[in-house]
Amino acid sequence: MIGPVRIKLCIAAVALIKSAGMNFLARQKKLREHLATTRFDALLVSHLPNVRYLCGFTGSSGLLLVEAAGCQFLTDARYDMQAHDEVVGAKVVISRRNIVTEMAGRLGRRKGAGRRAPRKTLGIEADHVTAAERKQLASLLRSSRGLRDTTGLVEDARMVKDKDELDCIRKAVRVGAGLFERALQVIRPKVKEVEVAAEMEYAARMAGAEEMSFPTIIASGARSALPHGRASEEEIKPGGFVVCDWGVILSGYCSDQTRTVWVGPIENDARAAYDAVLEAQQAAVDAVKPGATVGEVDSAARKVLRKAGLGRYFTHSTGHGVGIEIHESPRVAAGLVQELRPGMVITIEPGVYLPGKWGVRIEDMVVVTDRGREVLTPTSKELVVL
Amino acid sequence: MIGPVRIKLCIAAVALIKSAGMNFLARQKKLREHLATTRFDALLVSHLPNVRYLCGFTGSSGLLLVEAAGCQFLTDARYDMQAHDEVVGAKVVISRRNIVTEMAGRLGRRKGAGRRAPRKTLGIEADHVTAAERKQLASLLRSSRGLRDTTGLVEDARMVKDKDELDCIRKAVRVGAGLFERALQVIRPKVKEVEVAAEMEYAARMAGAEEMSFPTIIASGARSALPHGRASEEEIKPGGFVVCDWGVILSGYCSDQTRTVWVGPIENDARAAYDAVLEAQQAAVDAVKPGATVGEVDSAARKVLRKAGLGRYFTHSTGHGVGIEIHESPRVAAGLVQELRPGMVITIEPGVYLPGKWGVRIEDMVVVTDRGREVLTPTSKELVVL
Repeated sequence: MIGPVRIKLCIAAVALIKSAGMNFLARQKKLREHLATTRFDALLVSHLPNVRYLCGFTGSSGLLLVEAAGCQFLTDARYDMQAHDEVVGAKVVISRRNIVTEMAGRLGRRKGAGRRAPRKTLGIEADHVTAAERKQLASLLRSSRGLRDTTGLVEDARMVKDKDELDCIRKAVRVGAGLFERALQVIRPKVKEVEVAAEMEYAARMAGAEEMSFPTIIASGARSALPHGRASEEEIKPGGFVVCDWGVILSGYCSDQTRTVWVGPIENDARAAYDAVLEAQQAAVDAVKPGATVGEVDSAARKVLRKAGLGRYFTHSTGHGVGIEIHESPRVAAGLVQELRPGMVITIEPGVYLPGKWGVRIEDMVVVTDRGREVLTPTSKELVVL
Repeated sequence: MIGPVRIKLCIAAVALIKSAGMNFLARQKKLREHLATTRFDALLVSHLPNVRYLCGFTGSSGLLLVEAAGCQFLTDARYDMQAHDEVVGAKVVISRRNIVTEMAGRLGRRKGAGRRAPRKTLGIEADHVTAAERKQLASLLRSSRGLRDTTGLVEDARMVKDKDELDCIRKAVRVGAGLFERALQVIRPKVKEVEVAAEMEYAARMAGAEEMSFPTIIASGARSALPHGRASEEEIKPGGFVVCDWGVILSGYCSDQTRTVWVGPIENDARAAYDAVLEAQQAAVDAVKPGATVGEVDSAARKVLRKAGLGRYFTHSTGHGVGIEIHESPRVAAGLVQELRPGMVITIEPGVYLPGKWGVRIEDMVVVTDRGREVLTPTSKELVVL
């Protein structure tokens, strides 16, 4: 795999398939209108999922400059053809140098960009630009423009999905959900966790997935108590949970789903824990509606598990936004006051983890609707005992 | 998949399998000895591949503080069990807050860390810490310690692989190379590129790979002229190249390999281009030896392609380092003066791309030895016509 031109920006799970049908111009217009109300004359978009959202580029190296006068997209020679093919609403420039250096040089050379020119303000994405890149930009731009940190400008817009995005997400969720049938055929004693993952990932590819949205989690036995137990060489044994947490990327949009099954004769406390997690998950789903805060949704799940005496084993937050990225805004966690709005897509995924014993997690994707919520994940949540 | 605690550090391709047998203490000692010769009293390691290299942690959220007195590792509650199981040579601390906030708070609260305390200097990894994280650290640390940017401190050490690492890389390369046999069985007209990828990825998983080291590139026909043509829904047609560029991660180490095959009756100019790329690749491999610069290696490949009249179609650099990350130091590119040293592992992957027509790339992994080089990739480079 060919390396990038010197500095690597954080590469997200983005795909090559052209983002057909997306209304990039409307997104750019909205951002430009928003910029007009701020102190920024321009925004340098460097976070690749944001770049993709705004202009459709799906490669691993690119910068988008958004200004009142128009947009400019910069990438390196590896993406020459691809950028010209994919990018919508921006002038494409191919650079032979590191793209940050190139962009800074171009801005610095502009007519009227000297020390005596009127001060302009360029926003940079402080959550994604590295400290070194920021320093490089500041030094190359000299005093021609003020460099100002921004956070979440594009991410906030991305929280509410438009119709095209919801269509993509629905398709990804459908393909993702289909893989669970394959998992149920495969999970049995003596099968390795990675073998289950292999079968699911193969089915995903054959169903058109560009890739998995994160490394598949298949965590059996005591490993099910690891909230992030990626599929290992461990063999599944009778008498334990198997946590399956997986997702696919389709047309650049992620799915995310967890189901937990039991292998062998089930124990009473395990079934009780499963029932409690399911009840907590349902309570959180029911709490999703426009105007509710993400903290209230988290609290709904936490309350049920606390009542069941399992509160201290629920060690993570209840969910997160999903879209172009597997983890995006809003976080669904204790104490947060972000209000839900129609079009937001979040996961609801409480879990309990008893170290050395077992763990359970159940996760659906949910879209906030005008009147409440719609659960996108079609898979039954009844406990499967294999 | 469960979200992180507020700020996401760039998640690299790291795996859950415990890094058994690695000599983490020696690596920490070496870094500490190096720090003693610099102006830094401590280094805050936030780049996850560096964290893994130094203490063995394989999760997606962690910070390692390296000081003369010892190391401290901080992660969030999702990785409680896993961190205690994996981390070597560092005190493990589990945080319920964002780990950057937690780390800064801990440093700020230390005895003698007030405004009047002797000034100490904390190095941060400027190529990986975001501008926002840097600002947060600086503000939370107040004036107790000076914050100074560092670049490449751990990456430079990682360039030269130790014996344990070379063993892992050899195994990854072997498993990776095995997948090409599967590709050759599958590639034929009317098969989709993603189907070839699916078969290779399934074989990788069944052979124990933790995951692919990057999205598999299967680029057929005119798509072979895309240097980064990820496998798409496109059907393979007769009369064109198929560029296959793939890699696996095994025990946390990456393989990376490219082979290009022709489907159908071969055209003369295509065969000539293949021969030229092969000659260029061999020339670059032959140029690898201790003391040679990466620029000289790049130049060896470029010279051959220029002579064949294909110089302007070789649009990227000749190679890059490979190890815990798929792209790491050193870059093998024009004009760079980094000298090769025994133990460095690099790719050699020249290619030519004729837009709208086709592309060819051939890539091996090579380790620099005391006397020259050893090509790790065992696969034949003779042109396969299917």
